[in-house]
Amino acid sequence: MAYNSIILRLELSLNKVNFGEVASTITKAGGDITSIDIIRPGQEVTVRDVTVNVADTDETKVVEAIKALDGIRLINVSDRTFLAHLGGKISVQPTLPIKNRDDLSIVYTPGVARVCTAIHEDPQKAYSLTIKRNTVAVVTDGTAVLGLGDIGPHAAAPVMEGKAMLFKQLAGVDAFPICLDTQDTEEIIRTIKTISPIFGGINLEDISSPRCFEIETRLTEELDIPIFHDDQHGTAIVVIAGLLNALKVVGKRMDQVRIVVNGIGAAGVSICKMLLAAGVKRLVPVDRDGAIIRGGEYSHPMWAWLAEQPQVEATPGGLRDVISGADVFIGVSRGGLLSGSDVQKMAPNSIVFAMANPVPEIDPKEALPHVRVFATGRSDYPNQINNVLVFPGIFRGALDCRARRINEPMKLAAARAIASVVSESELNDQYIIPSIFNEQVVVKVRNAVVEAAILTGVSRRIPPDFR
Amino acid sequence: MAYNSIILRLELSLNKVNFGEVASTITKAGGDITSIDIIRPGQEVTVRDVTVNVADTDETKVVEAIKALDGIRLINVSDRTFLAHLGGKISVQPTLPIKNRDDLSIVYTPGVARVCTAIHEDPQKAYSLTIKRNTVAVVTDGTAVLGLGDIGPHAAAPVMEGKAMLFKQLAGVDAFPICLDTQDTEEIIRTIKTISPIFGGINLEDISSPRCFEIETRLTEELDIPIFHDDQHGTAIVVIAGLLNALKVVGKRMDQVRIVVNGIGAAGVSICKMLLAAGVKRLVPVDRDGAIIRGGEYSHPMWAWLAEQPQVEATPGGLRDVISGADVFIGVSRGGLLSGSDVQKMAPNSIVFAMANPVPEIDPKEALPHVRVFATGRSDYPNQINNVLVFPGIFRGALDCRARRINEPMKLAAARAIASVVSESELNDQYIIPSIFNEQVVVKVRNAVVEAAILTGVSRRIPPDFR
Repeated sequence: MAYNSIILRLELSLNKVNFGEVASTITKAGGDITSIDIIRPGQEVTVRDVTVNVADTDETKVVEAIKALDGIRLINVSDRTFLAHLGGKISVQPTLPIKNRDDLSIVYTPGVARVCTAIHEDPQKAYSLTIKRNTVAVVTDGTAVLGLGDIGPHAAAPVMEGKAMLFKQLAGVDAFPICLDTQDTEEIIRTIKTISPIFGGINLEDISSPRCFEIETRLTEELDIPIFHDDQHGTAIVVIAGLLNALKVVGKRMDQVRIVVNGIGAAGVSICKMLLAAGVKRLVPVDRDGAIIRGGEYSHPMWAWLAEQPQVEATPGGLRDVISGADVFIGVSRGGLLSGSDVQKMAPNSIVFAMANPVPEIDPKEALPHVRVFATGRSDYPNQINNVLVFPGIFRGALDCRARRINEPMKLAAARAIASVVSESELNDQYIIPSIFNEQVVVKVRNAVVEAAILTGVSRRIPPDFR
Repeated sequence: MAYNSIILRLELSLNKVNFGEVASTITKAGGDITSIDIIRPGQEVTVRDVTVNVADTDETKVVEAIKALDGIRLINVSDRTFLAHLGGKISVQPTLPIKNRDDLSIVYTPGVARVCTAIHEDPQKAYSLTIKRNTVAVVTDGTAVLGLGDIGPHAAAPVMEGKAMLFKQLAGVDAFPICLDTQDTEEIIRTIKTISPIFGGINLEDISSPRCFEIETRLTEELDIPIFHDDQHGTAIVVIAGLLNALKVVGKRMDQVRIVVNGIGAAGVSICKMLLAAGVKRLVPVDRDGAIIRGGEYSHPMWAWLAEQPQVEATPGGLRDVISGADVFIGVSRGGLLSGSDVQKMAPNSIVFAMANPVPEIDPKEALPHVRVFATGRSDYPNQINNVLVFPGIFRGALDCRARRINEPMKLAAARAIASVVSESELNDQYIIPSIFNEQVVVKVRNAVVEAAILTGVSRRIPPDFR
């Protein structure tokens, strides 16, 4: 149960009601008054802000009880979350002040003309003389936002702004939200290409499957800056990172284990691809209609691709069938699909990543007695698989070496770097993945990504610390 | 003549050359050494940064003289302007720090989901809960940048970043540069519409004529946020502001004077329209082929529009003919078109705004003996007509009242507000327009724009100070 701090702005008609009645009403409904501010004093009518600490579940009760009082007008209810969002969560700041005409003539006309001319003569200079070298667009069409689905570009903005905050705070990357008012694949591709000159990279976000695959693939082919669909690759990288450490805990190897991946959308496809790249030999992708099998025929292009892979099993079956005997279950689907008896059928020392949000594929209380290593996407259990561990460091690295793209070796390097933050001596069932606040994460991911980019020839600059 | 401070990074082979020779070479070529930093010391080879103050015109001479010295390798030449641009001129900053998991759950998942849902249910809440209410896109296609012409979207970026700096510093507006990799009118319109959800306004910049008219008109019709093409309207507003005061100085009235406007591109068209809106009865628009006359036929849509206006004169002629007897000349064309004898033919107490950049339509030295009030776009003469006086305040006002558009009354109000910053007692031939650093400018423009927006019904919010 979570507590919110809410602020009730009330207009009291003092001939009908006194503040004591208000206070006792709030307390009876489950609220705890922590402060009172008089906004407008008055003999007959007064306006006050009443801050109340209240459980999620009692919030409506408090509000309704207040509304039912005679002589009270409830002007507004705000809470900390909404207050933190007022006016948005990022700002654009000049890197230096314009104090006088001399400064102005340097950063604006007439001085800026020489800088423009220098870039016109050598477009690569955009990387040194403009924000391009440190700036990423966080682009969405608002079709698959959190667990909320297709809520549109305006409503998606708070997530993109939050992402931009994390980019800056964790990795010093300047990120700007771009929310697209279209759901057409071709138009999304065209728009991103058209606005790309100012950006050094594109982070695609919350774009629904299967359009996200085409959009990412085409942009990677048609632009020379890194494109990264966080819902696919961010999730896959952090899953692989967690799995690398979980396998160490249980003493199994990637090329020995049988892995069931449930939910073959954006994240699931990318997880399957990375598992294969990481050496997995026995893979069972599962979606709503059951296992996707080798040799099967599928209209979804990525499912068809999976059906061609020799490591994918050929035996059909539903999730409850194929999970039997599996070493690893990775869920990126929806809540409550599995029970304790299902995971009990897995191989000994089983690993379960139940990452559906906010409700995992299996209730942690049901899973824990039967599973050796258990992870979720939630912060209220150990082993949170969170892609905030990935995108800041991966873009820091890609920007620092001016990578043309983010390729598979760079992603695998990022996964290994995240895993490496947890030392052998610290590693245990409850601690397979570092906290997003662990300061080593971004540094290690960045270094690993730069190294992989240089080795695979996609870097266009060697950072000073790699010379 | 302007002076630059340049920094020469030199590698000296000390067996071939000593620093005394370097210093005397620089001095002989016209440079003044202001400081020396040893970057890498050494017995045989040493690297030093030599900071040199040098006139624009002597910069190449100094560099060539150094290169000609035996035993010297010139590693790099940087100057203050380029150094100020390194890494770009703006950054994106979080408005609050994410210190711990509790903060994270407010600005990102899971708390942000409630904010997204609130906007999904009422899209107008994007104005309170996202950056939309304070954020403007500075959009260019790089086709008409400063006096440089079509230099493309990458090379245009430093101007857009400079503009974003001014937006923030002068008016607290968050502005982000969008540089478009297309010159197709329809694609520009479509792209701006597609990326519009996160922005509260669009400042179009350095888009060549006549495409800029169609782009601005269509966006104004098809979006419900203010669109402002600075090259057209910013210039027109500041010209009208200067003219209002210049007319006071010479004791003439807007409805009495005969005005020649030379250069009927983006700025010229907008100036003509505003002059008509301000009550001018005798207008002579002039382009390369001479006067655009009432009743004439023109393929350029805006010229055709001008030919229909009753205030436009019907007598044909070249610039040198029609300027005869004019009270006001406004030039937004190119340098060196007029001589002293041309402006001598104007009516007594003539007003000349020669705003071609960097070389005005007439050399100030030639004009000044014959003209009562003289203004240019340059900062090294009195009366600088600079649209930095306009865009910060006009967008501050439009955003504060959530204006659907920026209409003609708002533009005229902005012009009058700028003019009003110079008081009657301060007003004289040399001081018709305030400095861009005058702190009253943005406040007065903002207030005037808000008032006009409310009066004309395009505001969607009454700012607290107007209630």
